[in-house]
Amino acid sequence: MPHIRKTIYRILETSAGRRRGLSLLFNITLITIITLNAVAIILHTVPEYNQRYAQLFYDFELFSVIFFTIEYLLRLWVCVENDKYSHWFWGRLRYLFSATAIIDFLAIFPFYFSLFATDLAIVRILRLFRIFRLFRISRYDRAGRMIQQVVSDKKEELILSTAFVVFMLIIVSSIMYYVEHPAQPQKFNSIPATMWWGVSAMTTVGYGDIHPITPLGKLLGGIAAIMGIGLFALPTGILVSGFTEHIRNQKGSVRPRCPHCGREI
Amino acid sequence: MPHIRKTIYRILETSAGRRRGLSLLFNITLITIITLNAVAIILHTVPEYNQRYAQLFYDFELFSVIFFTIEYLLRLWVCVENDKYSHWFWGRLRYLFSATAIIDFLAIFPFYFSLFATDLAIVRILRLFRIFRLFRISRYDRAGRMIQQVVSDKKEELILSTAFVVFMLIIVSSIMYYVEHPAQPQKFNSIPATMWWGVSAMTTVGYGDIHPITPLGKLLGGIAAIMGIGLFALPTGILVSGFTEHIRNQKGSVRPRCPHCGREI
Amino acid sequence: MPHIRKTIYRILETSAGRRRGLSLLFNITLITIITLNAVAIILHTVPEYNQRYAQLFYDFELFSVIFFTIEYLLRLWVCVENDKYSHWFWGRLRYLFSATAIIDFLAIFPFYFSLFATDLAIVRILRLFRIFRLFRISRYDRAGRMIQQVVSDKKEELILSTAFVVFMLIIVSSIMYYVEHPAQPQKFNSIPATMWWGVSAMTTVGYGDIHPITPLGKLLGGIAAIMGIGLFALPTGILVSGFTEHIRNQKGSVRPRCPHCGREI
Amino acid sequence: MPHIRKTIYRILETSAGRRRGLSLLFNITLITIITLNAVAIILHTVPEYNQRYAQLFYDFELFSVIFFTIEYLLRLWVCVENDKYSHWFWGRLRYLFSATAIIDFLAIFPFYFSLFATDLAIVRILRLFRIFRLFRISRYDRAGRMIQQVVSDKKEELILSTAFVVFMLIIVSSIMYYVEHPAQPQKFNSIPATMWWGVSAMTTVGYGDIHPITPLGKLLGGIAAIMGIGLFALPTGILVSGFTEHIRNQKGSVRPRCPHCGREI
Repeated sequence: MPHIRKTIYRILETSAGRRRGLSLLFNITLITIITLNAVAIILHTVPEYNQRYAQLFYDFELFSVIFFTIEYLLRLWVCVENDKYSHWFWGRLRYLFSATAIIDFLAIFPFYFSLFATDLAIVRILRLFRIFRLFRISRYDRAGRMIQQVVSDKKEELILSTAFVVFMLIIVSSIMYYVEHPAQPQKFNSIPATMWWGVSAMTTVGYGDIHPITPLGKLLGGIAAIMGIGLFALPTGILVSGFTEHIRNQKGSVRPRCPHCGREI
Repeated sequence: MPHIRKTIYRILETSAGRRRGLSLLFNITLITIITLNAVAIILHTVPEYNQRYAQLFYDFELFSVIFFTIEYLLRLWVCVENDKYSHWFWGRLRYLFSATAIIDFLAIFPFYFSLFATDLAIVRILRLFRIFRLFRISRYDRAGRMIQQVVSDKKEELILSTAFVVFMLIIVSSIMYYVEHPAQPQKFNSIPATMWWGVSAMTTVGYGDIHPITPLGKLLGGIAAIMGIGLFALPTGILVSGFTEHIRNQKGSVRPRCPHCGREI
Repeated sequence: MPHIRKTIYRILETSAGRRRGLSLLFNITLITIITLNAVAIILHTVPEYNQRYAQLFYDFELFSVIFFTIEYLLRLWVCVENDKYSHWFWGRLRYLFSATAIIDFLAIFPFYFSLFATDLAIVRILRLFRIFRLFRISRYDRAGRMIQQVVSDKKEELILSTAFVVFMLIIVSSIMYYVEHPAQPQKFNSIPATMWWGVSAMTTVGYGDIHPITPLGKLLGGIAAIMGIGLFALPTGILVSGFTEHIRNQKGSVRPRCPHCGREI
Repeated sequence: MPHIRKTIYRILETSAGRRRGLSLLFNITLITIITLNAVAIILHTVPEYNQRYAQLFYDFELFSVIFFTIEYLLRLWVCVENDKYSHWFWGRLRYLFSATAIIDFLAIFPFYFSLFATDLAIVRILRLFRIFRLFRISRYDRAGRMIQQVVSDKKEELILSTAFVVFMLIIVSSIMYYVEHPAQPQKFNSIPATMWWGVSAMTTVGYGDIHPITPLGKLLGGIAAIMGIGLFALPTGILVSGFTEHIRNQKGSVRPRCPHCGREI
């Protein structure tokens, strides 16, 4: 029994190094089903496809949920092979609340829930998050982990600059409300409504459904747009310094040897 | 009396290291009131909330201003505990004109002013600037100070590139005015009006309310948009070099060796 | 015969160092014809030019295709002079499937194909790809190769962040569909249709033909736009670290010393 | 006479170090007149100001041109004090064709030209280019020269990536023309017309006056917008590596000394 568990663990898990035979086959199957699910969820909302292939969509959904459920239960059974979750009960409980397991759970739970309740098409979206499992594919694992670590190293700075953006957005929108409200009471009819303009201007989206028309409003709008340039520059600067640091630290860890005395430098 | 002052100073100030008990409680209370104030100022402008909760908004504003006033007066009293403002009179005067104290003052002053004058809703916005106090929270203090220092180190370059943007904006808009004015005399009716197009094009916002229609105008508009890419690149490049320099200076741990004698420098 | 082949190879190929006399003349002629072709393809679609200069366009196309065909055949003949394609048969076959040769082939093939079939104007676009040959000009060769190498070094990270963008786009658009569909069933009538909004919002283009109008949709739209800032920051950070690494590797001139024996490494 | 010439040269030129007394006064006057000129040129196009202050605008223009003419002639006379232009004839001729002198000339020439010809308001814009003289002010001189040098160091890479953008723009627009022309023959009526969409999409401006409506066109439009992200990343990456190199080289030039043997490292 532990032997079978170990084998299944090796098939399910895509840690670097072992990706041959059954493991490769299973992972390709899984990724294919996940991708087809995403495609099905998207096409399901196109009226003509929905009517013509209604039965196909339902059958595929049923099949996917059964496949995902079996996969989920198997993963829960074999997770104890991982040193992080080795305890038979607490280990599995900790695994249940890991980010990956929660995403896997949210992909199947809505289906069982909707059997009892009314149809909640929106909950199907939860299954879309499984597409991030594609990042686990061997080739991009190293690159993905690097990006993830840099973002996590610079988390504080990134949160801070996002907070700064949001604060500036609140202040700029509040001023704009008092400037443009008299001229366009319908469009700039409250600060929250003006914030829709603000986010569109500062992120340089500019849908054009709402924009200042008074000279003072246009001046303020121009300043907000130029400030938007800074919004792009700050997180970029932070991420770049993160990547640079990461590369320097990484290189430091592969310590070369002195060609003269042979010792590590 | 100096003992009480020192205690109050310790409670009010959030310098690193002492954030326990009363100080923590006070700062959480303060941040909560500041945040609720921002929410109140925003929701106050939504017609339906304003009518329904008019009394609540007024009461909360009254409470906030009284709270902020007491806080302001206490800070003014205890600021002499800080070495920077140690003199009983000149120290306090210098404190009054510090950026923080001015923001704190502007948060309460408009209320007293509006008691005598007509209601100036716009001045309430001044209270919004207090939300930047949230950045003082311990966890983000280090990251915040780093960003602040990099921006201040590169102040000259950033001002210069902003000036460059504004100059290019003036020149591009002036040329565009003469190109598009004959075709669209209503929209491009003066250089200042054309600058509204210019800022929207060069910052890549593009609301769509004003845009060239002649072939020459479109060519110029295209050049302006491509130049806009450079606008994003320049401040980003400046900030990144700032972050890189900052990190290098901070960790001068990889000590090089003298090429002549071979010893560490 | 091999002597003539070598001479022609030297004239056709623009490797650094030999760009004088006939080789220079030929390459200027080639670049001129390629550029004129691009201009002709573009102007061909302007109704008034097409009618007035129909014969000229046709004649120039005929001339270009003949010139390109001769050039293609000559290149195929002389490619064996290059060490990479030295075998008389397999070398030439490998050359036929090199990126450059495929582009050259696609520039002439459609013409011969359309002699037998109906006129496929769209296939003329394939000839446009030849303009990238302009990058081979001596002066920009070094810079071009550097950019190419950095992009190819960071290929994995760039693919990964593009995939991340696409995944976020799918998820954001799916949520937006369920949020905005009830309010705007015409515009947000399926997830694929909503993805048109999503790509426009996240890349900060913002055409304005489709945008959320419900408060929840606007909130989600705002979050998507702010996430768009991150989309710009990530590839920039990746490319910058690539450029920095490249420069550091290129000039390993500041040779460090071994901390044990003090000699240069 | 040479003595007077040297004195005037010292007053006119703003090389670092000597900016006191008359030189400071003259430069402040010059910058004020240049700025007022820019303001006048801009406000001149606002119909109401133009009518009300017509005489004032004319008088100020006359005064400015006279002032600039005297300044231009003086600079031409004293330029020989600069080692670069020391020869009494060839030096002055070389000075006449320096970038600064050409800008100065273009600022005054149109006025004299329009005395004989019809009024060409557009040529007044040439005077706007003089505002870049503001960058010469002492404080920002160092930062400005740094930015200028980095841009000039990376000139090749920047030209190359701009050319790449333009080539991609041509190709994307050509494909889009064949895709969207049948559906929107009015808007996408030729490749040049489609390029207006292309530049607006790839630089993420997105005015909204022209955008694809067919599914295939929208897919291509989405790809173009995501490629636009790369457009921002490339020049930013290039500029950043330029700044980083510049700082490293600069630091390397201030060569420190070994604390053990006292020699330069």
